[in-house]
Amino acid sequence: MGGAPEPVPAAPAAPPAAVQYLFGSGEAAALGVQAWQALVDHVVVNRGGNPEDSVVLAPGTTLAAPGFVRCGDRPPAVVFDIDETVLLNLGYVYDESVRGAPFDPDRWARWEQSGADKVVAAPGAVAAVNALRKAGVTVVFNSNRAAANAAWTAYALRTAGLGNAVHGQTLFLAGDDTGGSAKDGRRATIAAKFCVIAMAGDQLGDFSDLFAAIPSVAERRAAAATGPIAALWGRGWFLLPNPVYGSALKGGFDDVFPSDRRWSDPATVAATEGAK
Amino acid sequence: MGGAPEPVPAAPAAPPAAVQYLFGSGEAAALGVQAWQALVDHVVVNRGGNPEDSVVLAPGTTLAAPGFVRCGDRPPAVVFDIDETVLLNLGYVYDESVRGAPFDPDRWARWEQSGADKVVAAPGAVAAVNALRKAGVTVVFNSNRAAANAAWTAYALRTAGLGNAVHGQTLFLAGDDTGGSAKDGRRATIAAKFCVIAMAGDQLGDFSDLFAAIPSVAERRAAAATGPIAALWGRGWFLLPNPVYGSALKGGFDDVFPSDRRWSDPATVAATEGAK
Repeated sequence: MGGAPEPVPAAPAAPPAAVQYLFGSGEAAALGVQAWQALVDHVVVNRGGNPEDSVVLAPGTTLAAPGFVRCGDRPPAVVFDIDETVLLNLGYVYDESVRGAPFDPDRWARWEQSGADKVVAAPGAVAAVNALRKAGVTVVFNSNRAAANAAWTAYALRTAGLGNAVHGQTLFLAGDDTGGSAKDGRRATIAAKFCVIAMAGDQLGDFSDLFAAIPSVAERRAAAATGPIAALWGRGWFLLPNPVYGSALKGGFDDVFPSDRRWSDPATVAATEGAK
Repeated sequence: MGGAPEPVPAAPAAPPAAVQYLFGSGEAAALGVQAWQALVDHVVVNRGGNPEDSVVLAPGTTLAAPGFVRCGDRPPAVVFDIDETVLLNLGYVYDESVRGAPFDPDRWARWEQSGADKVVAAPGAVAAVNALRKAGVTVVFNSNRAAANAAWTAYALRTAGLGNAVHGQTLFLAGDDTGGSAKDGRRATIAAKFCVIAMAGDQLGDFSDLFAAIPSVAERRAAAATGPIAALWGRGWFLLPNPVYGSALKGGFDDVFPSDRRWSDPATVAATEGAK
């Protein structure tokens, strides 16, 4: 191409704070290790709690009155999301944040196909996966990576030390059914073959699609943190930290801060009053 | 005051992403509930693991070769940080983020003295504190809020539903000793009176001051997530999420991204090559 080059945005001086936190801090790494160790303790030490029920919500039940798919005599399994759950996408986030670029689904597709050696296993994930398999529990992945890229994703998991995943058996992806990015259909497929005794992910959609149907930020948070769903965290459902992208990053001031919890610095108020 | 008013910075349209995450999302709330429930399960159900050792690092031991203060016949206690651990500082963060203002220690001091009714208990914290006290475990707070504001901080804890804290007995604050914001001295004071069977906080400094002596971002992360310290997360040491402020938010691109995990989008590379 000829002519003047495209203007290049100024390179950021440092990664965004959320990226520093998730990929650089001991705190986020500790949160991940903590979740994986709690999951292993729950599954292996406590034998998954009540073995008659899975931790997959039964069709027709709700977040306010959840019921769970019963296990029958199906073999035990755990179901994990992939991105920012068992894998950290260092390469992709580096490329995006060093250029200050927004998320681009086409770039993400290229990443799925060419980034397998630029990921790392999430802190604690390899030890957990190994302990679970040693205990006779099948590890199943349910991800919104594309079914068309299944071989690349299996290669990325293997390269990161997370073992073998077989598309359609222990690896379920967007495009496997007509649900698009909704995961309940794939969860039902998995729960028909296995007794799912634990799930892990970085988004509420990794546990139930019902959260996505709640338009209010505050009500979505309440549905996760209060009532019967709250009892599941650390006891069947295991959350991994991700402040970098996803369904958690929304809401205006009125959504995030209850009206009775807003404070004004008295010094600022006094200065403003004085200036009148 | 007369004259022209000070220029007012444009109000941000929405809270920063990390604030949306921590205070607005179901994901962060679930991370908190998960940590508190894992702590209660560890302490109450599993009786705190090995009752001969506390989870407080013994003086002279290291992160690479940790040893722990022995308990003798001292009564069981848990030690918790306060801010973004048992309390969420909604009012302060609202004031700061709605104006786009940077952190100001003087404003924070005013917040300690006037914000007690503008906090909320962190998701899961009240249930955990109640379960621990019911099990006969003393709840002790070790915070870098100022000793001079002890009465205000005790009032904030009580207002949020976290019960009574008594300065010098179950509430330890910056200024109680000569350590400034370092917490090891106060931890030693607490461990001399109690058998500390669990600790919780949102910063690595809530567990040991040794992390702060590690200048390298990557080495600090490795010290938390690998080696003998890793075994403590979820099993004596419990981390709460906080991507909004603190020691986790540092590092340039070279610190956060290992050189062998940087990816360049092949389409961007091709476009750049084509433009030459």
